[in-house]
Amino acid sequence: MNSHGMKLGWLGVAVACGLTAAAQAQRSNGPLTIASQGSFFVGGEKKQLPQPPAGTPGAAFGGGEIMIHQMYVQYQIPSRGNRHVPVVMVHGCCLSSKTWETTPDGRMGWNEYFLRRDRSVYLADQVSRGRSGFDSTVIGAVKRGEQPPSALPDVLAASHQVAWTVFRFGPRFGEAFPDEQFPIEAVDELYKQMIPDLNALLPTPNPTWTNMAALAKQLGGAVLMGHSESGFFPEQAALLDASGIRGMISIEQPCAELNEAQIAKLAPIPTLMVFGDHLDGVPGSFVNWQTSADSCQTFVDKVNAAGGDATMMHLPKLGIRGNSHMLMQDKNSDEIADLVLEWIDQHVER
Amino acid sequence: MNSHGMKLGWLGVAVACGLTAAAQAQRSNGPLTIASQGSFFVGGEKKQLPQPPAGTPGAAFGGGEIMIHQMYVQYQIPSRGNRHVPVVMVHGCCLSSKTWETTPDGRMGWNEYFLRRDRSVYLADQVSRGRSGFDSTVIGAVKRGEQPPSALPDVLAASHQVAWTVFRFGPRFGEAFPDEQFPIEAVDELYKQMIPDLNALLPTPNPTWTNMAALAKQLGGAVLMGHSESGFFPEQAALLDASGIRGMISIEQPCAELNEAQIAKLAPIPTLMVFGDHLDGVPGSFVNWQTSADSCQTFVDKVNAAGGDATMMHLPKLGIRGNSHMLMQDKNSDEIADLVLEWIDQHVER
Repeated sequence: MNSHGMKLGWLGVAVACGLTAAAQAQRSNGPLTIASQGSFFVGGEKKQLPQPPAGTPGAAFGGGEIMIHQMYVQYQIPSRGNRHVPVVMVHGCCLSSKTWETTPDGRMGWNEYFLRRDRSVYLADQVSRGRSGFDSTVIGAVKRGEQPPSALPDVLAASHQVAWTVFRFGPRFGEAFPDEQFPIEAVDELYKQMIPDLNALLPTPNPTWTNMAALAKQLGGAVLMGHSESGFFPEQAALLDASGIRGMISIEQPCAELNEAQIAKLAPIPTLMVFGDHLDGVPGSFVNWQTSADSCQTFVDKVNAAGGDATMMHLPKLGIRGNSHMLMQDKNSDEIADLVLEWIDQHVER
Repeated sequence: MNSHGMKLGWLGVAVACGLTAAAQAQRSNGPLTIASQGSFFVGGEKKQLPQPPAGTPGAAFGGGEIMIHQMYVQYQIPSRGNRHVPVVMVHGCCLSSKTWETTPDGRMGWNEYFLRRDRSVYLADQVSRGRSGFDSTVIGAVKRGEQPPSALPDVLAASHQVAWTVFRFGPRFGEAFPDEQFPIEAVDELYKQMIPDLNALLPTPNPTWTNMAALAKQLGGAVLMGHSESGFFPEQAALLDASGIRGMISIEQPCAELNEAQIAKLAPIPTLMVFGDHLDGVPGSFVNWQTSADSCQTFVDKVNAAGGDATMMHLPKLGIRGNSHMLMQDKNSDEIADLVLEWIDQHVER
C-alpha cells in the first residue's frame, strides 16, 4: 500500500490497491475472496415410525416422523463464480466430502483449488453418509427383537489393509509402488476419513442420484463429478433427469453396461473418465481396476459412436505416472485438477 | 475505483481502494475475504478387527485395522483472525456441524457471523457423528450372530414430534408459542439436519471431550462452545486438560454436579451459560429445561464462589423473548451472537 501522497493514474491506483496481487493471491495460497457460502439440503422425505412398546429401547423418544434420504450440500461461490459452470463433487465408498478438502499431507484440496479457479463448488455428502445422515430404524427394530439380525445392513467399513490395495498405494499392505503419488507418509490422515458406508440401506434408484439431478437443475446447470462408488453417479443422475447436467466427470469406477436408449440419453452431455496408474498392479485385490477402466472405455466408445463427446483420460497415457485411486489427494493433485479444469473449459464451456 | 489520474494522499488511496467498503462487506453479506480454510482430524486410534468367517457378511472386506474416535474439524481463518481467540463450535444431539451454518430459513449461520467479526471458527462433528464417522463393528457382529441384538447401541433418532417440544418451538407438536423466534415456516429444513446419534457407542471419557481439549491446545488457546448434548463438553474437556481452553460457552444443557476440586479446576476459565425462553413452557416434555437452567445456575454460583468468572445469560432477563433451544438458528440469531461476542471481548479477551 502506498502511504505517501503522490500523483497516481488508474494503473497507479490499481497497483497501490494490489489488484494484481489479489488476483495472484486468489489463484495461490493467498487470501481468498468469496462472494457467498453456506449449506443446504436437497431432497428428503418423511417416514412414519411406530411407537416402540414401553420399556423397550427407543421408547422414551417415541414414534413419529423422521426425515430420510436428504442430501447435505456445502457450497462456496467465488467472486468471479458467474464466469463458469458450477461443479458438484461427490465422494466415494467409506468416505465423506472430506475427500475433496485439505489433503492428508495438508495441501489444498480440489474444493479450494477449483474455487480459486473461479468455479462455484458444491460438496455433497452421499445420502446415508456424513452430515446427510441415514435411516437407523432397522437398528432399533433388531435390538427390540421386531426384526431378525439378518435385517441389519451390510456395513462397508473398509480396513486400512483393504484401502491400501484397493486405493492402489502399492502391491501389498505397507509396501508402496516406487513411483507412488499418494502421500504415503500421511496415510493415517486418510484412514481417519474412512467412515462406515450404509448405502446397503438405500432403495433403488439411489436417492443420491435423484438429488444430484435435482441439484444440477436447481443450480441452473452444473458439472457433476463422482469418484469410485459415486463415479458413475453423474451418469445415473442424468438417466433420471439430464436437464440440469452440463457435464459429467467420472473418476475411477466401473461403468455400467447401458442400452442404446440410455446411451442416446447421455450422448448430448460431455463426459470425462479419469483413471490413474497401476490399474493391474495389485494382484488379488478386492477390486480389479483394469476391468473397470475397460468397461469405461467401452462406454466412451459407445457414447462417441452415438455422436457424443466422451473422453477417456488414462493418466499414464499422458505421461503422468504413479497416481493412486485417491488421485485428488495425490502429490500431483493440482496437475490433475488443471487437466480436469481444461477439459471443462474445452468440452463443457467451449 | 478512481479511474482518473489525480493527486491522492493515503486516505485517497484507501478510499479509491474501497477499504471502508471492504470492511463493511466483511461484516455484512458482502464479499468475504479469508486468510485460509480447510479441514483436519483430531485424535483417532487404531482398532483391530478379526477376519469374519468366509461367506458371512463383511467377509469380503476382511479383517484388519480401522480408525475410531477421530474428530473431524472444518475451519476458516479470516484476514484479521489473529486479533481474536479462535472459537470451536460443537453441535448437539442428533445434529451435526450443520447446526452452525446457514439457518433453516436461509440466513447466515453463526459460523460465518463469527468469521465476519474476525474470529477464526472451527466446526467439529462429534465423534460418532457426521464426517467423524463411528465404530460400526457391533452391527456386523450382530448380523453374523457373534453378538446378541441387545449389544446394538441405543440409537437416538429423534422424531419431529420430539424435536418440536424438546427444542421448545411450542407447547405441543404443530403449535408454536405466540412469540416463538424459531423460523417455524422452515422447520422441515431443521428436520433434515437431524441424523442418528450413536453416542451410546462411545467409551468414558467421551473421545469428543479429549479431542476438544487437544484441539484447544493445538490452536494455542481457544474458546470452546457446546450446545445441548455437547453444552457441558467444554467443561468436561477442561476437566481432562484445561491448558488450551481460554473460555467456555455452554448453550442450553444440564450442568453436572461437580465436586470442590473440579470447580477449582474450572474456576480460572471464564464461563458463559446461555438459555432461551419458555424453559418451563412445555409440560410433559422429554426434557425439563427449567431444571437444566437451575443446575447451571448452581454451577455458576459455585464457580463464582470459588473466585471464578461465570455468567448466566438467561435471555428473557435481558428482555429478549421467545428464543427456542435452537437459538443459533432463531430469527434473532445475530442479536444473540452479538451478545456472545461481547461476552468473549469482555471476559476472555479483556
